[in-house]
Amino acid sequence: MEDVQNHAADVSLPIDRVGVRNLLVPLKLGDRKHGVQHTVARVELGVDLPAEYKGTHMSRFVESLENWNEELGYMSVKRLLEDLKARLQAQKAQAVFRFPYFLRRHAPVSGAGGVQGYECTVIGELASEKPAFSLEVDVPVMTVCPCSKAISDEGAHSQRAEVRIRLRLNGFCWLEEFIEMAEAAGSSPLHPVLKRPDEKAVTESAFAAPRFVEDVVRAVAEKLARHPRVAWYRVEVESFESIHAHNAFAWIEGGTEAASSA
Amino acid sequence: MEDVQNHAADVSLPIDRVGVRNLLVPLKLGDRKHGVQHTVARVELGVDLPAEYKGTHMSRFVESLENWNEELGYMSVKRLLEDLKARLQAQKAQAVFRFPYFLRRHAPVSGAGGVQGYECTVIGELASEKPAFSLEVDVPVMTVCPCSKAISDEGAHSQRAEVRIRLRLNGFCWLEEFIEMAEAAGSSPLHPVLKRPDEKAVTESAFAAPRFVEDVVRAVAEKLARHPRVAWYRVEVESFESIHAHNAFAWIEGGTEAASSA
Amino acid sequence: MEDVQNHAADVSLPIDRVGVRNLLVPLKLGDRKHGVQHTVARVELGVDLPAEYKGTHMSRFVESLENWNEELGYMSVKRLLEDLKARLQAQKAQAVFRFPYFLRRHAPVSGAGGVQGYECTVIGELASEKPAFSLEVDVPVMTVCPCSKAISDEGAHSQRAEVRIRLRLNGFCWLEEFIEMAEAAGSSPLHPVLKRPDEKAVTESAFAAPRFVEDVVRAVAEKLARHPRVAWYRVEVESFESIHAHNAFAWIEGGTEAASSA
Amino acid sequence: MEDVQNHAADVSLPIDRVGVRNLLVPLKLGDRKHGVQHTVARVELGVDLPAEYKGTHMSRFVESLENWNEELGYMSVKRLLEDLKARLQAQKAQAVFRFPYFLRRHAPVSGAGGVQGYECTVIGELASEKPAFSLEVDVPVMTVCPCSKAISDEGAHSQRAEVRIRLRLNGFCWLEEFIEMAEAAGSSPLHPVLKRPDEKAVTESAFAAPRFVEDVVRAVAEKLARHPRVAWYRVEVESFESIHAHNAFAWIEGGTEAASSA
Repeated sequence: MEDVQNHAADVSLPIDRVGVRNLLVPLKLGDRKHGVQHTVARVELGVDLPAEYKGTHMSRFVESLENWNEELGYMSVKRLLEDLKARLQAQKAQAVFRFPYFLRRHAPVSGAGGVQGYECTVIGELASEKPAFSLEVDVPVMTVCPCSKAISDEGAHSQRAEVRIRLRLNGFCWLEEFIEMAEAAGSSPLHPVLKRPDEKAVTESAFAAPRFVEDVVRAVAEKLARHPRVAWYRVEVESFESIHAHNAFAWIEGGTEAASSA
Repeated sequence: MEDVQNHAADVSLPIDRVGVRNLLVPLKLGDRKHGVQHTVARVELGVDLPAEYKGTHMSRFVESLENWNEELGYMSVKRLLEDLKARLQAQKAQAVFRFPYFLRRHAPVSGAGGVQGYECTVIGELASEKPAFSLEVDVPVMTVCPCSKAISDEGAHSQRAEVRIRLRLNGFCWLEEFIEMAEAAGSSPLHPVLKRPDEKAVTESAFAAPRFVEDVVRAVAEKLARHPRVAWYRVEVESFESIHAHNAFAWIEGGTEAASSA
Repeated sequence: MEDVQNHAADVSLPIDRVGVRNLLVPLKLGDRKHGVQHTVARVELGVDLPAEYKGTHMSRFVESLENWNEELGYMSVKRLLEDLKARLQAQKAQAVFRFPYFLRRHAPVSGAGGVQGYECTVIGELASEKPAFSLEVDVPVMTVCPCSKAISDEGAHSQRAEVRIRLRLNGFCWLEEFIEMAEAAGSSPLHPVLKRPDEKAVTESAFAAPRFVEDVVRAVAEKLARHPRVAWYRVEVESFESIHAHNAFAWIEGGTEAASSA
Repeated sequence: MEDVQNHAADVSLPIDRVGVRNLLVPLKLGDRKHGVQHTVARVELGVDLPAEYKGTHMSRFVESLENWNEELGYMSVKRLLEDLKARLQAQKAQAVFRFPYFLRRHAPVSGAGGVQGYECTVIGELASEKPAFSLEVDVPVMTVCPCSKAISDEGAHSQRAEVRIRLRLNGFCWLEEFIEMAEAAGSSPLHPVLKRPDEKAVTESAFAAPRFVEDVVRAVAEKLARHPRVAWYRVEVESFESIHAHNAFAWIEGGTEAASSA
């Protein structure tokens, strides 16, 4: 049967990345406390394609993922990327996993517990020997407006905001670490369950720590800039202003590595 | 050329609705103040199909819309629906327009003005002589939590919330009327521009009017229940809680007309 | 500490439903083949609220869900709904779970296997003794256009389409049954992995079975109308036409039970 | 009244960008044929913030946009950016406009006309004297699979695909030019209206030009690489495979200017 993909390309240009996207699969991954958690991931897999081939063999990506079936981690993603390179006869391979990561959160007074999901992305790339890893975590927090508080006789507008951390790492890190960094930077972390004494405590502590998006983004950037395993970072905060239909945002990019494309 | 659509259906069942969806078009419509505004709509057009025909003629929907090219209104939508019925040889026709509707909003102290867009939907249906109209408007507001305010030494959490009004009408109404009804029911309407004296006024008046989603939904439902041109309503309020990653919601359905499918 | 929720309502109107939405949680559920699968669900929980109470107690919904922690099924959802009614002192409770449900699919010639996720919703309602259940499944299929095939010297446009089945049940049913019903109604089911002999077989069998959205919706409706445990159904098919930027759709509603609101 | 924004920052770090996002406004812009068209845009406005200031003045962004009220173009965006820099006392300003851009499309045989909307983004940045412009256009096309066609006795799967062009320009260009470039690269452009003789012609011409995502991305990249006013480009093609629930994608990045962050 004819292998059209192996034909010569009409236009002789190398392709930076070609692959499949939006593969929805169950995923297991380790967490710091419970050893393993089950979640669901949207997966993207890609490789480079030399100028001389018309097409890649798309079914091999899905076969590679089916065959992999491992718990997400440094070594397991490395094995997946090596397998992709071999199956697709490629120089570079990339795998992207987007999934909700669950942590238990406890109310500050009652201790009432509940699970909270954080949207995370793990990106592994393999060009030569050693894979490179990037992480993304989206962490919702509460912000109380310092200006509204300072000028009003009573109250201050507050709202949900989202802290989005993008990282290139040069060593292993837990997702928890960056989620906690983001939650500490807002006026308050969010909670799945708050009984009345908790709601009182959260309201009062949030009003004692009013924060602009500028304050939140700087607090996170300062920690990322000093982090020994963060080679590059971009942190963005977007607040869904409760007094406007539009949002406020701020971002800072930095790191020891020269900034490059997302 | 063969007309496959006119073949006999394999399964002899009438189809409630068949048509096209997600047509993106420029749209003009009248507003109470400026006569005409330009916006952009996603349009859905559909008709019934008798049991004996295999298919409808999809291109005629788009031709009908192209040919229409009128300002959105009671009479113009009636003409579109009559044209659809005639072109498609149908007993019933429906047209759905979803679009942002723009109103100017002014800050309470400085008077600083700005435009705010509200997601609206106008649905027209024609079975016999007289078209029936439904409206949907989504109105963002601010809510301040009454519980958080009552129990905390300082502050109260507030957040953006959305009031969603769904209506079946038995007469002509302006969209503005329902947008204003929703804005009046929250702790505060939202504003495109707020200078510092405005922000102080909005914060203070919102904190003087704390509202649960239950309060907001009841305030709107009470007005809709008494409205002479509202035959059926469903109002839902969803608040993007600033202390939680999840949302609170409440809805009430009512009206003089028996409730039927959305 | 003051219980503001127990205050009298400003507007004395009963609320049809009040609760929380967009709770993201890990979920286990049984499947026909493997006993149990792990997935992730977005959950909505709600109850009715009498006219005399200002508010419901939102934290109790999350506590009820936290406490539940069971595999999704008829008896477990009944227990959750009974617990919600008791905790919230309500007459009616409803729980909605939206989640991807995974099935293994095998290529028609090579037998190459892969997992495919289907967006499903399980809705349980408890008013008196016996819970009522609704199901929703969204099933992507391929459609080949019968008109394009009949009139063209070569080829026919094909595209991805989505079959959306909404059901009210009067007895227990597996999700698999309705997914298979939808997949059988299109020109071809979709496959996670297709090697070249598989792609040839799928292309040829799809072109031997061209289907309009009208054909697909009728084929599913005919089976649902005769199903002994389906009290009400609505089936919609939407095809993402490869020759247009807009979509074609068709829906049929029916059942032994009188149609009511979604 | 206290100006909290002018306080010293808690963390003395410069912020790359701070501003507002998701402002929904009516927008006018010139097109090659009709002079002016009305559409609706989501707008983001941002500036840099030095290390010493706690916050920016968010209301000034909206005032600047309100005051602007011009037809979108090179000179008008330059004026908006200059105004933002002045009002916010900033070194850099950026404005992002995302909007559907409408073009009339005619069927190949009947000439039947209809409007088609393309999602476009115009980004202007002003650091020193001369503004820099970036463009994004998303163009849906049809692709017929060359492999499926070569190996099957009859037919070939086809599907809707999207061509996403991202550009940094060093001179003025019409959006039309890049939309037409993308439409020419697929197996067929899409059409709002196709009568039967048109559908026959489109099907046959598409089947005479089968294209992988790799073919489409190379055809566009080749033209962009030679374009005198394109300093940098990234073109991505994603096809919503009609035989799979997942998508295929390919991208190429290039240009005379060194690649930098999106």
